[in-house]
Amino acid sequence: MSKSWIVLGVDIGGTTTKFGFVDMFGEVFLESSLPTRADEPAEFLIDRLHQAVETQWDSMDEGYQLVGIGMGAPNANYYKGTVENPPNLKWGVVNLVDLLRQYYPEIPIRLTNDANAAALGEGQFGAAQGLRDYIVITLGTGLGSGIVANGQMIYGHDGFAGEVGHTIAVRNGRNCGCGRKGCLETYASASGIRRTVMELLAEKTEPSELRSIPFSDMNGKVIAESAKRGDPLAWEAFQRTGKILGTALADAISYTSPEAIIMVGGLAQAGDILFKPTREAMDANTLNIFKGKVKLLPSGLKSGNIAILGAAALIWHEILQSE
Amino acid sequence: MSKSWIVLGVDIGGTTTKFGFVDMFGEVFLESSLPTRADEPAEFLIDRLHQAVETQWDSMDEGYQLVGIGMGAPNANYYKGTVENPPNLKWGVVNLVDLLRQYYPEIPIRLTNDANAAALGEGQFGAAQGLRDYIVITLGTGLGSGIVANGQMIYGHDGFAGEVGHTIAVRNGRNCGCGRKGCLETYASASGIRRTVMELLAEKTEPSELRSIPFSDMNGKVIAESAKRGDPLAWEAFQRTGKILGTALADAISYTSPEAIIMVGGLAQAGDILFKPTREAMDANTLNIFKGKVKLLPSGLKSGNIAILGAAALIWHEILQSE
Repeated sequence: MSKSWIVLGVDIGGTTTKFGFVDMFGEVFLESSLPTRADEPAEFLIDRLHQAVETQWDSMDEGYQLVGIGMGAPNANYYKGTVENPPNLKWGVVNLVDLLRQYYPEIPIRLTNDANAAALGEGQFGAAQGLRDYIVITLGTGLGSGIVANGQMIYGHDGFAGEVGHTIAVRNGRNCGCGRKGCLETYASASGIRRTVMELLAEKTEPSELRSIPFSDMNGKVIAESAKRGDPLAWEAFQRTGKILGTALADAISYTSPEAIIMVGGLAQAGDILFKPTREAMDANTLNIFKGKVKLLPSGLKSGNIAILGAAALIWHEILQSE
Repeated sequence: MSKSWIVLGVDIGGTTTKFGFVDMFGEVFLESSLPTRADEPAEFLIDRLHQAVETQWDSMDEGYQLVGIGMGAPNANYYKGTVENPPNLKWGVVNLVDLLRQYYPEIPIRLTNDANAAALGEGQFGAAQGLRDYIVITLGTGLGSGIVANGQMIYGHDGFAGEVGHTIAVRNGRNCGCGRKGCLETYASASGIRRTVMELLAEKTEPSELRSIPFSDMNGKVIAESAKRGDPLAWEAFQRTGKILGTALADAISYTSPEAIIMVGGLAQAGDILFKPTREAMDANTLNIFKGKVKLLPSGLKSGNIAILGAAALIWHEILQSE
C-alpha cells in the first residue's frame, strides 16, 4: 500500500521555532518547538531543528511519507531561499533552504515570510479556500500582508512583495521602524494600537482602566479585554485603529480587487470590536465599482497552528496546483 | 505554405474607434478609424466596425490569417466581455464580445480596459518585454493602471482590478468624479495638472504665460510646452504633480514589488519635466528593501498605435504564453 503524503511546516520566530507535520487536509501532527536562539548562527538552529524533527518523526505512524518542507520566517525571500537582515535575528543574509537541504536533499524545501505563509494557509485550509483573489492581513506586532491574485501568491520581482503595512496611511504621521513616517503598521497593529492608546490618554480626561497600565505592559490583548469590559477609551482606540485600517484596505481593493480580505493574528482575535469599525471604514471608502463585493473575514484556521499550517501550505499549494 | 497569423486590435474611445491589424512583432497594418457615436446603441458601432474591418481586410496581403480580436474600451470587464456604464458612452451594460462574435464566431475575442491593454502592449512589444512584474500607468484625462505580476495581468475577482488612479493620494483632497475625495487621478493626470495650475494661479503672484489661457483651453500639452519654455509656474505644476505621483508609486511598489513602472499616455509625453520629480519622490518614499530596484520608464511603443497594439496584445499574450 502506498504511503500517505505529509509535509513538515516550520515557523521560525525571533524567540521560538515551531514545527509540525501537516497532512493534505490541514491536520497537524506532533507539533513541537525549540528555542530559536537569535544570537547564535543560523546553522546551529537548522542543526537543532533537524535533530528535533527526526526525534518527532520516529514517533510518526509508518504510513506517512515526508514529501516537502515549508518554512515561514521574517524577511524571507521566496525566490532565493534566504532570510535577509531580519530585525530580530542577527543572521545578516543566510540561505535557510540550502542549510536545511543538507539534511533533506531529495524533497522540495520552500521559504517565505510569515504573512505570505498565512495567506497560503488560509487559501489551502482556511477562510480563503477556493478563492483565486484575496489578501491576508496579519495583525501582530507589525502588519504583514500576503496578496494572492489569479490563484498565485504575488512575490514580486525580488520576492518581497506584499508590504501593505508599509504603505503610507497618514502623511507625515508616526515614526516607523523602517525609517519613514505614517506607515499603516504604526497605526494598525498591536504596537500601533498601543500608541493610539497613549495618544488617547494624552488627549482625553475621562477615566479609563488603561491609565493604570504602563506602556511596556500595554498590548493588544489588554486593550481588547478592556474594550470588551466597556472601557470607553479602549473602545475608542479600536475605533480609530479600524478607521485607519479600513480606509487603507479600501485602497488595497483598488489594486487587486480581491474577493475577500482576511484579517488574522493576535490583534484580529479582538473580533467585532476591530472588525466592525474596519468594515465600516472600508465600505465607506471603497470605489463604487468594488462596493459591497469584498468580504472582510477572520481566519478560518485553528489559531494555534496558523504559522505551521501556512508554512506547510507552501508545499501543499505546489503539489495540489500542479495536479 | 501556411499563412502568417495576425490579430485585429480595436480601441473604442468616447469619440473615435480605431483599429488595425497587428503581427506578432508589433507591426501595425492598415490602421483605420470610425466615429464611435456614443449616443447610438453599441450594436450600431459593432455593425459599422465589422464593415470597416472587412473593407480593410480585403486589401490585406493574402498571406495572413486572422487569429483573434483584442479590444480596449473604458470600464471593460475582461471576464464577462462587457463594458459597464462607461462614463462617456450611453450604453449601460453591454457585451461587446458577444456582439462581435456574431461576425467572427470562430476566433477568440477578448476585451479589457485601455490601461490593461496598454500594460499588455508594453509587455509584448514595448518597455516591459521580458518582465514578469511591472505596472503601467496611463496618464490621460484620468489615471489608469495595469498591474502585471508573475507574468499575468491582475484582473481581480470581478475583472476590474488596477484602479490605482482611485487610491487616495490626499486625504480629504480634491473632489473626484467617482464621488470621493483626494483620488490620485485628481492630481496626477492631464485634468489633475490643470487643476494644479489653477491652484498655483490662485496662490502665487509671479507672471506666467498660463495666466492668459482659460481653464477650458488648458491641457497637459499646453502646460508642458510652457514649462519647457521656462515658465516657472508651469514648471512648478509638474513638480507638484510628480511629487504626488511618485509618492503614490512608492506605495504601489510595496504592493506588488514590480521591476519597472512604465508611464505612458499624453501627459507622460511631457518627458523629463514629469519623470524627474516623479522619480525623485518615488525613490525618496520607497521602503528600504525596494529602494533602487524599481525602474521608472517611458513607453517603448510607437505612441500613435499604443491603444491598438495593446488591444492586439490581449490575444498575442495568450497565444505566445500558451506555446
